[in-house]
Amino acid sequence: MNLPRIITLTTDFGLGHYVGQLKGVISGRCPRATVIDLTHDIEPQNITQAAWVLMTSVEYFPPGTIHVVVVDPGVGTDRRALAVKTPGGILMGPDNGVLWPAMSRGGNWLAREITTAFGPDTSRTFHGRDLFAPAAARLADGGDPTGLGPPVLNPVRLELPTPRRREDRLVGQVLFADRFGNLVTNLDRVIVAALLAGRPAAVHLADGRTVPLVGAYAEVAAGTLCALFGSAGYLEIAVSGGDARRGLDLAPGDRPEVGIGPAPGEGGR
Amino acid sequence: MNLPRIITLTTDFGLGHYVGQLKGVISGRCPRATVIDLTHDIEPQNITQAAWVLMTSVEYFPPGTIHVVVVDPGVGTDRRALAVKTPGGILMGPDNGVLWPAMSRGGNWLAREITTAFGPDTSRTFHGRDLFAPAAARLADGGDPTGLGPPVLNPVRLELPTPRRREDRLVGQVLFADRFGNLVTNLDRVIVAALLAGRPAAVHLADGRTVPLVGAYAEVAAGTLCALFGSAGYLEIAVSGGDARRGLDLAPGDRPEVGIGPAPGEGGR
Amino acid sequence: MNLPRIITLTTDFGLGHYVGQLKGVISGRCPRATVIDLTHDIEPQNITQAAWVLMTSVEYFPPGTIHVVVVDPGVGTDRRALAVKTPGGILMGPDNGVLWPAMSRGGNWLAREITTAFGPDTSRTFHGRDLFAPAAARLADGGDPTGLGPPVLNPVRLELPTPRRREDRLVGQVLFADRFGNLVTNLDRVIVAALLAGRPAAVHLADGRTVPLVGAYAEVAAGTLCALFGSAGYLEIAVSGGDARRGLDLAPGDRPEVGIGPAPGEGGR
Repeated sequence: MNLPRIITLTTDFGLGHYVGQLKGVISGRCPRATVIDLTHDIEPQNITQAAWVLMTSVEYFPPGTIHVVVVDPGVGTDRRALAVKTPGGILMGPDNGVLWPAMSRGGNWLAREITTAFGPDTSRTFHGRDLFAPAAARLADGGDPTGLGPPVLNPVRLELPTPRRREDRLVGQVLFADRFGNLVTNLDRVIVAALLAGRPAAVHLADGRTVPLVGAYAEVAAGTLCALFGSAGYLEIAVSGGDARRGLDLAPGDRPEVGIGPAPGEGGR
Repeated sequence: MNLPRIITLTTDFGLGHYVGQLKGVISGRCPRATVIDLTHDIEPQNITQAAWVLMTSVEYFPPGTIHVVVVDPGVGTDRRALAVKTPGGILMGPDNGVLWPAMSRGGNWLAREITTAFGPDTSRTFHGRDLFAPAAARLADGGDPTGLGPPVLNPVRLELPTPRRREDRLVGQVLFADRFGNLVTNLDRVIVAALLAGRPAAVHLADGRTVPLVGAYAEVAAGTLCALFGSAGYLEIAVSGGDARRGLDLAPGDRPEVGIGPAPGEGGR
Repeated sequence: MNLPRIITLTTDFGLGHYVGQLKGVISGRCPRATVIDLTHDIEPQNITQAAWVLMTSVEYFPPGTIHVVVVDPGVGTDRRALAVKTPGGILMGPDNGVLWPAMSRGGNWLAREITTAFGPDTSRTFHGRDLFAPAAARLADGGDPTGLGPPVLNPVRLELPTPRRREDRLVGQVLFADRFGNLVTNLDRVIVAALLAGRPAAVHLADGRTVPLVGAYAEVAAGTLCALFGSAGYLEIAVSGGDARRGLDLAPGDRPEVGIGPAPGEGGR
């Protein structure tokens, strides 16, 4: 019997003791579970970032892994809590859209609302510890999502913005900045490669600048603004050895457009 | 045989390699132990914060868990090192009071000084790695605190401040700020509920302001100063989506009074 | 059969999801492995700091532990990836010198280049996840470094600076600042003790100041500049309860000299 026993955690809790308490609850209810921190460094309440991190990380974990996301501005309100079975694993989190990109990318899904009560004293402010942790431990211990509550057919859907074609370019936008200050966009390497069909590329920023598309940071001098496909396969705007948020004068939450297309040919002008 | 095999760590070491070395020592001496980081983000040398985190977290771990606290301004002096058996688990840490609130809350306790030497080269500056880690590993491996050293009957007692009654209000104070800037007080939900007896509450800050008591951050607009009972059951002063330290103009270490009582009735004035 | 099943990670990835993905890859390929974060808080691309952390930490882990270091400014270029067998454990990382101090300190070593491909889609920017993680998992699962690729006889050698004798002093230098702002030097306690031969010591900073050598922070008043031997046995310049970088007005990357010698005798002058 090869039960799923890995639980990943994705939160905006940072380094405090909240994550530790959550792990205590899991360890008490399912000592065999291996808990892996996916990240606790999501920007506070940034559902888009958490959704993207989950969507692009599921494939690196064994199927059957239980992925718990607690980025939840609506905690304490009557938003539902979900457990969703997908081919890549079980996704758990608030019904605020954060699970949707991973659900819809993964193909078919079956969602349940978590209505089981796990203790007499469910705090209104810490569903991670008092609701999601015990529910995840139950699943890690061999339980099935069907036992957690009734089916949900209309989960909140958070669609990440889709790039659009504009003349010979593909135009996407920045989704969020990672902790290094790299600006992660929605421009997917596979789609871009199809567009370019082998031609060299140019990356166009919203302010009119063109930056080089490189294969590695080491290809450009320190401090240089450049673009490269990150480890998840999405185009990132970066400053080699620096912070692209500052390089582009971005305010928090700014999500400027980024375009990519074939570089002007040598015969151009 | 169901030995305690969970060890939690609460330190002010932050993200450096000190925690990793400590885990290496444990893994070498008791590979079966599961180590859980409760937090390493205690404000440097803030014994009150560490004591509070330990006191409010023990209940979320299985009985028999070994809780190690290394927040230790006096390391290298002759302060004692303690291992304390309590109904909720074994508590280990310096004899500076940091264990006391959890000890006294948990009922009966039996304390030992750790006098066993665990190696020829005990560093004077890293008791976490060279003393507490091997001692915790020995207990996780089935050892008993009685083997670590002589009994201690007079541990240092750190009493957290107690709220006082003033007219119809309960007046407590801020204990520390968490990493979000929420100000955690010593006002306990159960005691406040008894005082209010169902009446609506008003929260009074030291500067005369009254802030609303809410059930969830989502109930107030972003940037609004409010009060709510946190996940440990204590009243917190918070700014929805912001930092209450700045909202109250606090200097580090400031611990202003906070009062709570029945809101003035509609027929009042 | 007692296979090495501990894998440590030392990176400059910080708190993001990159570390989590790397652990996902390991858990899928070797569920029995225990992964310990040595640190992810290496200053970005600071090879010297990572080399020092590895060198001084190996001894705290069981022999056979697999130590993976990913601090890799040259990722995406054609620098080699190494797996090195040493008496203390297996060291894995880029061939940029980061493994060398631990290799040379540990005595004999046998290095292999990792040329095995571990998947069709090796990203050019995340060797930690796509190359080192699967290679480490294979070794943790009982594999041998010889299966990873051809021998390497000429690894890049990063020599940490060596202290020099100047008159009656030993003169070393700051290697890096840790997260507390303590300045870690290359002055080793054992060598200094031989020099002093029991005489009291004086520590000389590059700006001419002399600071006291103490045994514990608690021996000096808060805010006082002092020197003490850290938990790894190297002299550190520190400000009790403060940040020595600011106390010495250092810019990032500054590595000033530090001297230590016998204090002027009472009969002096």
